[in-house]
Amino acid sequence: MAKELKDLTKRADNYSQWYNDLVLKADLAEPSAVRGCMVIKPYGYAIWEKMQRQLDDMFKETGHVNAYFPLLIPKSFLSREAEHVEGFAKECAVVTHYRLKNAEDGSGVVVDPSAKLEEELIIRPTSETIIWNTYKNWIQSYRDLPILCNQWANVFRWEMRTRLFLRTAEFLWQEGHTAHATREEAEEETVKMLHVYSDFAEQYMAVPVVKGVKTPSERFAGALETYTIEAMMQDGKALQSGTSHFLGQNFAKAFDVQFVNQENEMEYVWATSWGVSTRLMGALIMTHSDDNGLVLPPKLAPIQVVIIPIYRNEEQKKAIDQQVSEISKQLKGLGISVKYDDADNKRPGFKFADYELKGVPVRLVLGARDLENSTIEVMRRDTLQKETRPLNGIVEYVKELLDDIQDSIYEKAYDFRTDNTFEVDTYDEFKEQIEKGGFILAHWDRTAETEELIKEETKATIRCIPLNGDKTPGKCMVTGKPSECRVVFARSY
Amino acid sequence: MAKELKDLTKRADNYSQWYNDLVLKADLAEPSAVRGCMVIKPYGYAIWEKMQRQLDDMFKETGHVNAYFPLLIPKSFLSREAEHVEGFAKECAVVTHYRLKNAEDGSGVVVDPSAKLEEELIIRPTSETIIWNTYKNWIQSYRDLPILCNQWANVFRWEMRTRLFLRTAEFLWQEGHTAHATREEAEEETVKMLHVYSDFAEQYMAVPVVKGVKTPSERFAGALETYTIEAMMQDGKALQSGTSHFLGQNFAKAFDVQFVNQENEMEYVWATSWGVSTRLMGALIMTHSDDNGLVLPPKLAPIQVVIIPIYRNEEQKKAIDQQVSEISKQLKGLGISVKYDDADNKRPGFKFADYELKGVPVRLVLGARDLENSTIEVMRRDTLQKETRPLNGIVEYVKELLDDIQDSIYEKAYDFRTDNTFEVDTYDEFKEQIEKGGFILAHWDRTAETEELIKEETKATIRCIPLNGDKTPGKCMVTGKPSECRVVFARSY
Repeated sequence: MAKELKDLTKRADNYSQWYNDLVLKADLAEPSAVRGCMVIKPYGYAIWEKMQRQLDDMFKETGHVNAYFPLLIPKSFLSREAEHVEGFAKECAVVTHYRLKNAEDGSGVVVDPSAKLEEELIIRPTSETIIWNTYKNWIQSYRDLPILCNQWANVFRWEMRTRLFLRTAEFLWQEGHTAHATREEAEEETVKMLHVYSDFAEQYMAVPVVKGVKTPSERFAGALETYTIEAMMQDGKALQSGTSHFLGQNFAKAFDVQFVNQENEMEYVWATSWGVSTRLMGALIMTHSDDNGLVLPPKLAPIQVVIIPIYRNEEQKKAIDQQVSEISKQLKGLGISVKYDDADNKRPGFKFADYELKGVPVRLVLGARDLENSTIEVMRRDTLQKETRPLNGIVEYVKELLDDIQDSIYEKAYDFRTDNTFEVDTYDEFKEQIEKGGFILAHWDRTAETEELIKEETKATIRCIPLNGDKTPGKCMVTGKPSECRVVFARSY
Repeated sequence: MAKELKDLTKRADNYSQWYNDLVLKADLAEPSAVRGCMVIKPYGYAIWEKMQRQLDDMFKETGHVNAYFPLLIPKSFLSREAEHVEGFAKECAVVTHYRLKNAEDGSGVVVDPSAKLEEELIIRPTSETIIWNTYKNWIQSYRDLPILCNQWANVFRWEMRTRLFLRTAEFLWQEGHTAHATREEAEEETVKMLHVYSDFAEQYMAVPVVKGVKTPSERFAGALETYTIEAMMQDGKALQSGTSHFLGQNFAKAFDVQFVNQENEMEYVWATSWGVSTRLMGALIMTHSDDNGLVLPPKLAPIQVVIIPIYRNEEQKKAIDQQVSEISKQLKGLGISVKYDDADNKRPGFKFADYELKGVPVRLVLGARDLENSTIEVMRRDTLQKETRPLNGIVEYVKELLDDIQDSIYEKAYDFRTDNTFEVDTYDEFKEQIEKGGFILAHWDRTAETEELIKEETKATIRCIPLNGDKTPGKCMVTGKPSECRVVFARSY
């Protein structure tokens, strides 16, 4: 592993290769035998589980419940909402048959042509259609509203170019689908969930995000408004990390979901949907990690503290074991996850490199001499700083250190984003700056034509119209036409 | 609802219809627009989540970790293990294309014939093949073993006759897949997980189970040995509730997974797999529920205690609210989930019927007169017994009551099973008894022919050769040939 670690590409040499190396070497995920589909390995899945658990708690605190809807969607459902079918029906996995049979030449199994489905089924790329078809039977009156459902599920989109976590054909996600009696309530829900996502990203992932609204051309297919959180990676590119959609009455109309309102009139139901996916793993990895491996925020680290003994004989080992047992017990009592790695078939140096690669936030090393001096060595993963501390009070120190790491990596990422966000007023400046990466705040005339031109010429897209940005009007950097406010441009994943 | 409740079919009238009514009316699940696939509604999913959480904790306590493997499996993988393909390749969902396109007549979308896959993909009916194909790259030496992975996932089997939770085309489950260096260790793991399942069924679901071994004809396709837990439903039929398979080296050989053992020799890896599914929901519902609706074990009830106020004016309501707030706080402090239903648009009688239907274990009713007398009405769902208790000490009383309900419903189910388990020595007796339902303990000559004959003539199958049964030898009730011990026969779901 110490050898393998050296093989981790440096960020400065090839950022993209560094990311891929890291995902593989830290045992997070790997490609599978099925094109575009990944295997999420136990260590990667343990991080995803911590993210899931926290998000699920936040959804429930905001009044949501979980449910489960079918994996397969009748083909005709996709056509019901005109924009939706354009966005999602094209690249998808199509189930056409329901049986295999033995090949006549004995070479294995073949599709049984007599088992052709009357109507093909699509593996869900997203579940608005099947869910709104279901909601039709759940909603008669305003008393049945709101419905605040979330689903944890796998979805499938036939992507041509895939990258582990960032873009895979199958991915895991949650999709919230809510139904409301009024437009106002649905709009409020859309924004509320955007804030749940940004709170999660900032407070748990330690990833600062820009909250904003997508331009019409970047909206979810079928939405009236798409809100987004956008994070900046260390190469200056943007990563869309979560979206929340105000769907208006589009899906209610497509699936004829009406209700009797308080005025006793029939009305179409108002909808939202919102989701985050295993893509968040990509954001987490790329925001904090370094040339030595992963850097994990303590709140999402499967192992928060690793303890490694250094000893020459069994007597020393026994004394260390005893001390570690006491420290572990106290740390666990504070809700801190601890691993004592006393495996004797690996050298300490190997273990050090391995836990650095895996991003364990705090490493404690206890040797025989430490015991004599009543000290212990503490290393924090984010800065790799080592110090020798008195054993007395070490548990409280580690607890504070974990909080400090959580805050520090957020601040580091926040400062990085600040240093790489630029206000630009001319298109020439823009073209120059975009090559260096980062977020560019510039004026835009709110036309799809200008947006498209900029995208074609610079590969930069409008990530969002920020909710909390400077609202000073100005002139479009390309056309000189009036602009209400600066928007965020970047190249993106 | 009070009206709808009356529509619940009585068990004695039509057990099968009662089950279906109950699943629908208690808002557990419903059929979907996709044949054979169900929608798991929020209340049903909340129960499943509690089951998942508990099982997941038990898996982790026994050293397992979670991971995630692809939904789709290349068709050729299924053919690698000869028995496996016979068992699973036949009725499955086959993905043949990866794109739709607009129909030329504008009628919607059609499959794009140019987007035909070279090799078809199968939606996983179970994941042994894709997982062992992955393990091949994870295992080189005995040091890489054991691998103790579990996956929470959806799977798909094209079932012709489906019933909510009991048999659906898509279902949710967990599948453990472990890899070991020795036969002994894999066999130990298989049995260990059987015990985890039976502990879960008995201690959490309050469902007594018979642990045993399947006959060769009932084995999992590709297994050397299949262990099972079998529960008895109230109609006397058996429900297979969980299985644990010793796979020997079959999948290692099919996917060429070898390792260097401690003697420095190449050897095939030993395997197990084990799973429980949303089918457990069916077992839970059918074991305890009655003609008034669900009866849930307190340990898995999403709401353990419901409190309903009865009042004539706002002043009374305010006094009740205050008292309830205190009780709720104390109950929650003990980790008990409480719902205070003070909705004023539903009559108390409607609420009573609704929470009975939903199986909430304990109902507290607090009225103005109760407040005057410092009393409260307590009803336990399992027996529907009501009593008036002093407010003083009510929290401790409820806590003990929940424990008592958990124990009582287990005992009730245990006694029911005992009363409906029969030792039978002749085939004539057997044929008579099987019509009345229940488990029959009888001698069998261990041949597939006799097993098949009994199945054809009586619709009874051998549920298992019980691990803890009477080991007295005897003579087969059909052929008179020697039998090592009695086995469990029953009709089954």
